[in-house]
Amino acid sequence: MRPLTADSLNPAILKVEYAVRGELAIRAEEYRNKLKEPNHGLPFDRVISSNIGNPQQVGLDQPPLTFGRQVAALMEYPDLAKLAPNAFPQDVIARAAELRAEIGSIGAYSHSQGVPFIRQNVAKFIQERDGFPANPNHIFLTAGASAGVSLFISMLLSDPKAGILIPIPQYPLYTATIAQYDGTPIPYFLDGSAGWSTSLSEIKSALEIADEEGTSPRALVVINPGNPTGALLNEETQEDLVRLCEEHSLVLLADEVYQDNLHKRASHPFTSFKKIVSRLKSPIPLVSFHSISKGVMGECGRRGGYFECTNISSEIMALIYKMASVGLCPPLQGQIAVDMLVRPPKEGEESYALWKKETDTIHDALASRTHVMAERLNKLPGISCVDSPGALYLYPQISLSDKAIEAAKEAGKQPDTFYALALLDKTGICVVPGSGFGQREGHWHYRLTCLCPGVDEYVGKLEKFHNSWVEKYGQ
Amino acid sequence: MRPLTADSLNPAILKVEYAVRGELAIRAEEYRNKLKEPNHGLPFDRVISSNIGNPQQVGLDQPPLTFGRQVAALMEYPDLAKLAPNAFPQDVIARAAELRAEIGSIGAYSHSQGVPFIRQNVAKFIQERDGFPANPNHIFLTAGASAGVSLFISMLLSDPKAGILIPIPQYPLYTATIAQYDGTPIPYFLDGSAGWSTSLSEIKSALEIADEEGTSPRALVVINPGNPTGALLNEETQEDLVRLCEEHSLVLLADEVYQDNLHKRASHPFTSFKKIVSRLKSPIPLVSFHSISKGVMGECGRRGGYFECTNISSEIMALIYKMASVGLCPPLQGQIAVDMLVRPPKEGEESYALWKKETDTIHDALASRTHVMAERLNKLPGISCVDSPGALYLYPQISLSDKAIEAAKEAGKQPDTFYALALLDKTGICVVPGSGFGQREGHWHYRLTCLCPGVDEYVGKLEKFHNSWVEKYGQ
Repeated sequence: MRPLTADSLNPAILKVEYAVRGELAIRAEEYRNKLKEPNHGLPFDRVISSNIGNPQQVGLDQPPLTFGRQVAALMEYPDLAKLAPNAFPQDVIARAAELRAEIGSIGAYSHSQGVPFIRQNVAKFIQERDGFPANPNHIFLTAGASAGVSLFISMLLSDPKAGILIPIPQYPLYTATIAQYDGTPIPYFLDGSAGWSTSLSEIKSALEIADEEGTSPRALVVINPGNPTGALLNEETQEDLVRLCEEHSLVLLADEVYQDNLHKRASHPFTSFKKIVSRLKSPIPLVSFHSISKGVMGECGRRGGYFECTNISSEIMALIYKMASVGLCPPLQGQIAVDMLVRPPKEGEESYALWKKETDTIHDALASRTHVMAERLNKLPGISCVDSPGALYLYPQISLSDKAIEAAKEAGKQPDTFYALALLDKTGICVVPGSGFGQREGHWHYRLTCLCPGVDEYVGKLEKFHNSWVEKYGQ
Repeated sequence: MRPLTADSLNPAILKVEYAVRGELAIRAEEYRNKLKEPNHGLPFDRVISSNIGNPQQVGLDQPPLTFGRQVAALMEYPDLAKLAPNAFPQDVIARAAELRAEIGSIGAYSHSQGVPFIRQNVAKFIQERDGFPANPNHIFLTAGASAGVSLFISMLLSDPKAGILIPIPQYPLYTATIAQYDGTPIPYFLDGSAGWSTSLSEIKSALEIADEEGTSPRALVVINPGNPTGALLNEETQEDLVRLCEEHSLVLLADEVYQDNLHKRASHPFTSFKKIVSRLKSPIPLVSFHSISKGVMGECGRRGGYFECTNISSEIMALIYKMASVGLCPPLQGQIAVDMLVRPPKEGEESYALWKKETDTIHDALASRTHVMAERLNKLPGISCVDSPGALYLYPQISLSDKAIEAAKEAGKQPDTFYALALLDKTGICVVPGSGFGQREGHWHYRLTCLCPGVDEYVGKLEKFHNSWVEKYGQ
């Protein structure tokens, strides 16, 4: 028989790239295994995974919120309410009983769109957040935001010339999914010299280029707060973007998974696109994504999230339901966590004080770490870094000398990948090179998370590495 | 702006059909809501969901296996081992501690291929089952078997003329996924008059027709034990199928999710395709799927499963890893349940006796229910039903009179859908019409699960309905 070879496979799959778990992450995993050997010979004693927003991973160890985990344990093993009644606060027992009454066993498939009761709670949360009505039937629970984004992009890409506007830099889920479904990305650049702001004129030029190339734009992706940039849109820009979608008949895909990761709430608040679209009474189709993996919950491993459809016809929602039903349902432990996300303990309830303390601690640590890291990175020669007001990342720009670029070329690597690999080899710190997110020609960056405790030691290693790099290659 | 309409979307999405959660299931859901009203006016007081193999759903209420749920609760809230030490057997506490040491928090993303330690345990399970080696690096944990099947089919379909051989009747995941990724199904018929056996000559004729139509076959799907048929392949047929894959350079996709649902183990044992391929030293690429949703675990809501790759090059496995990494990782509670599936309590361990009792009860109930239902259905006029030796379903054939077919036509329905809708309207029993799975022209069937307790009442309703139908429409 003929062997199965990659060139006989779907060519779209071959084109997919996803740097967050790419070459760097794979090498970091190898180092992690090697460190278990007694004479590993590596110049570090642990690998620090700054490549991915995964707060609870080993080494970062952000503690989960107790309330949610207590409810989850009771859902797994309801007898515990009787076997160990003193191990749980009363509001936890009540919440688990309420969810049990609505859901039954979490070992059963739920409604493919997600448990109706949880969707009602999501709708209430959106309504309270925005001051405009939300409809539970327009909400789909998902296995994380990625699953929802992927579903929507697969529906919108009707042919290879169908295009989707994506910010550069972007979270590579977007380019990966557009490649997988054989569409065309239409990149628009964010402005690193102005706090990674979004500019209408950049999007308009991108649309002009697309037009010249025969690409038909279908949707605009906006990530707010930004990933990898951490930037927040102001309402004026958001209104402009909505108008632009109206003018060009674009679906707005609003990735709002970092809406609760705000480090400067006073100067950089979050406003949802749902609120803007509702206030403007705009007819644009809007899909807003949210997740349990980010925020202060950080429950990545459960795989949960939701999207809300605004101005999407019931005909199209029936198609979404059909596609969701082929996958049967999102994981129930993820769905339940969405309930905790939108319905945390309230003041006066037994679990409130602990919940408040836990969430404040996480917010404060993230904000202060982000600020300290940006400040110290900015002091290094050839590095400039926006002090992110949101999300979980910094995206420093690094200037690389001709000598460094030449050395990268000889090694067969992109210059920023070459830098990131050297950083990993010397320090055990794993970041993602900017080429994974996109950057202007001749600009170089990397993304690192601000989740790692022990900032002094961590940034100290980064500084030491960078200084020795500059010594070797110049600025 | 132009509104977003279905005809501007990806045309492949429009073609997808998935009957298991289609028209019947949607109407059943409406009835379930209506029953909550005091004067609902329906001729039944509960809806019985026999449309889907969802053992733990409300109304069926198959209890989860205690061991797995106890471990899951400790993974959610590890403090319980101290807070309520007497609520858990020692082997449960030890298992949870072992998993915690390997995984860390279940709130963190794991390796995209699945937790390495759990993959090692899966490999041991396969090795013990088959007597041939298995490699943890060739195993991918998934969010249920469906997610794995969908990923593989998306990779194999390189163009619209690429085809995949599927049994008819089939589980509609296959036609849905082939439609979604714009490939061509190549149907081969199973023989209902011979216990739904698989015949080589049927597959060869299907390949000839495909050849005439210019379709290039890439893979053969085999579901063993069968869904919806419950049939089991004998080893001779399995060997023939492997040889056929060799001859035609086909990837063998072996859906073996019902491998533990065997009602007649002595006469109808299960043999994995991995064992056959290993024994024959065949070079065919084989992908075998397994799941936590079926068997006696029935943990559908967790979304967990795995697939094992045999004779798949490392180049292609790197592509699979890349695609898995875009989705980040399978749900951790699903991964952990895979560990329980492949490593249940052993004789001599504290949890063994309860585990044995629970699993025996489920096996026995399913086997006896399947047999009783088949026997009673076979006594009804115009119904013939294979007494399934495996899986969770029966797939009775019903003869429908010209009068019934005419009435269906007037109602704008397929005849079998018309029958199933009438059954739902009168009894509250929701089944899936055969047109959702495929059937020979002029043959009519429906699929129903054998999961519903209270067989007497349940089959009594089916009998009463069918007799009144025959009275109205004739045989």
